Amino acid sequence: MNLPKGFRYSGVAAGIKASGNKDIALIVSDDGATVAGVYTQNIVRASSIDWNVTITPSDQFRAVVVNSGNANACTGDEGIANNRQMAEATSAALGVTAEQVAVLSTGVIGVQLPMEKIEKGIQDAATSLADGEANFCAASEAITTTDKSPKTAQATVAIDGETVTIAAMAKGAGMIGPRMATMLGVVMTDAQITPKVAQAILDAATAASFNRISVEGHMSTNDAVLLMASGKAGSQISSATDIQQLSAAVTDVCIELAKMIPADGEGASHLIQIDVTGAQSDDAADQIARTVAASALVKTAVTGNDPNWGRIVSAVGYAGVDLQSNEINLVLNGFELFSAGQPVAFDAAEVSKSIGDNFETQIELSVGSGAGKSRHWTSDLTVDYVRFNSEYTT
Amino acid sequence: MNLPKGFRYSGVAAGIKASGNKDIALIVSDDGATVAGVYTQNIVRASSIDWNVTITPSDQFRAVVVNSGNANACTGDEGIANNRQMAEATSAALGVTAEQVAVLSTGVIGVQLPMEKIEKGIQDAATSLADGEANFCAASEAITTTDKSPKTAQATVAIDGETVTIAAMAKGAGMIGPRMATMLGVVMTDAQITPKVAQAILDAATAASFNRISVEGHMSTNDAVLLMASGKAGSQISSATDIQQLSAAVTDVCIELAKMIPADGEGASHLIQIDVTGAQSDDAADQIARTVAASALVKTAVTGNDPNWGRIVSAVGYAGVDLQSNEINLVLNGFELFSAGQPVAFDAAEVSKSIGDNFETQIELSVGSGAGKSRHWTSDLTVDYVRFNSEYTT
Repeated sequence: MNLPKGFRYSGVAAGIKASGNKDIALIVSDDGATVAGVYTQNIVRASSIDWNVTITPSDQFRAVVVNSGNANACTGDEGIANNRQMAEATSAALGVTAEQVAVLSTGVIGVQLPMEKIEKGIQDAATSLADGEANFCAASEAITTTDKSPKTAQATVAIDGETVTIAAMAKGAGMIGPRMATMLGVVMTDAQITPKVAQAILDAATAASFNRISVEGHMSTNDAVLLMASGKAGSQISSATDIQQLSAAVTDVCIELAKMIPADGEGASHLIQIDVTGAQSDDAADQIARTVAASALVKTAVTGNDPNWGRIVSAVGYAGVDLQSNEINLVLNGFELFSAGQPVAFDAAEVSKSIGDNFETQIELSVGSGAGKSRHWTSDLTVDYVRFNSEYTT
Repeated sequence: MNLPKGFRYSGVAAGIKASGNKDIALIVSDDGATVAGVYTQNIVRASSIDWNVTITPSDQFRAVVVNSGNANACTGDEGIANNRQMAEATSAALGVTAEQVAVLSTGVIGVQLPMEKIEKGIQDAATSLADGEANFCAASEAITTTDKSPKTAQATVAIDGETVTIAAMAKGAGMIGPRMATMLGVVMTDAQITPKVAQAILDAATAASFNRISVEGHMSTNDAVLLMASGKAGSQISSATDIQQLSAAVTDVCIELAKMIPADGEGASHLIQIDVTGAQSDDAADQIARTVAASALVKTAVTGNDPNWGRIVSAVGYAGVDLQSNEINLVLNGFELFSAGQPVAFDAAEVSKSIGDNFETQIELSVGSGAGKSRHWTSDLTVDYVRFNSEYTT
């Protein structure tokens, strides 16, 4: 695995998780790095998010400290103080300022952080920092909660004669606790870019990836994606073409990571990809794709390998987008099921087999002759999802 | 059961349902009645809805014919012709015009109606019309699909010295097929009112009842509520006070019926009532209540008797309403769990027991000092819901 120059990683077990699994990750840039962040739009958000928005974007950034097992959300004034203490303990261990340290937390809501364990874990993580793949993987493991496995992606791209490397990690399987989920992502690159460019690249990448996925649509209090650029790959990337090339590479890495989240959705038996074309605008297409992705009836139909196009078409109808029902066409896994507002005769057993035989279900909707399009990914909805999220009492 | 004067009912088995259960209902006003209708806002809607919007409101209305087991939705031109044929067969059997007949259909989407069975069923229903409770109940049974039992409600109110009677039936347990669900309601009264007053009363009643419930939030292609007023109770109700009194009585009947739908939600083990107060407007409160009601994580927490206030409070945060997180208060089944943005210490076992011991879970949220308020009802989300909606292949 190629890793970008200029970063060191560690992941340790601090005892926040009852399981004893790794729960503190540290990602450090050897020198001042560029950083950008994208955060949850939930008004009820964790104190870590309040902290990060004040220190990003920046070009003097040094470290991200992540704890899993506790979201430090809805924890009031004590939670704000504990979050600041996480940043300060990291800054002391690394010899940097607190304002150079971002904090990410994920896990149970409404419970105070075990600060003694956290501070000890940060010390351990600081002393075990290293730049190799083993440490990168340890960090990616330490940020997970209900994930079945760590989620990482990597890309190398030649820009203006220089090799730029991107490596990223993410976590997420459901939206929020107490089964300790949320969506976090950290993207590292050795490209040299300004904070303004970094923010624009991250905004575009997030819009096309992490903002296009859902498990059950419940927005977390702690969602965050950071982009760190160490600048060690070479000279400043500043031409529009070069920025576009880096942006495309970062977007691809984020899409690869983002798809892993619903694929790993709590109890998921299918990843569902929804493409909407022909809408009046990208926003309209997005709204339709999001509505279809959110339908429990669409999701349970896929779970049951049921080519139940009525559930899909009727979800399009209540998306709140102005459209004509006789311009709706639906293709599922390559089979045309609905055309120009009329049902198409098809072999239900054949389509059902296609859903059952493939982990990924492809839903293609065209809704008119407009240029608007959007792609979303979601998980199906299984008995195991409900078990997972109901058979647990705080 | 007191029934309003001037109506006859019947419910018969026409063989549309494979089970052999009743599947054609007929409700007839002896003379020209006032009628009003409220219909699904889904752009993809059944031809029965297209038909009904052209003939309601009216003061020359005579009959509603309902079939269950087939929604006649997404069935193209043949479906439009079949719907018209249902109205015409009913008009011929009753000796009225087709434009005096509303059609309601509920059941599987995308399958053509078995017209031979439907026409025979309408004949049978027309010959078995009667005004007693047995026939009212037969009709209420014939409109059901996945409902565990028929849903009826009744009220008698003295208005300006005259006794006005209201009786209503509804069906609904999930939103759409192929497990043959949708929400239908028919409200009969013997009050004498104009179509304009009838429409205003029905709009208000629906806004406070059927528009405040959800099972999984998937809007049907066939949802419809009709109000029929025979005028047999006495003289015209026209003063503002009298209209308000009738409106309140109709609203109460509709709320009683509406709550039965999520209580009978597919696989539901709890009815959840959500009250939001203190919002800037009723619309804002409504949006918050709707968002909390739609959260699969809130619903599965209630299923698991889990007082997981973090899921509720975080859903408030992403409702898209401008509010301050430190003004949020949450009381669940009378227990204060979150106050002014801070967690409140509580006995989790005691609150969990309260959820487990009661079919109805009460969620009370205050979100500020505004006058806006809203009440919603939803079902919880159980393993049985997923089984019900996935373990079926068309």
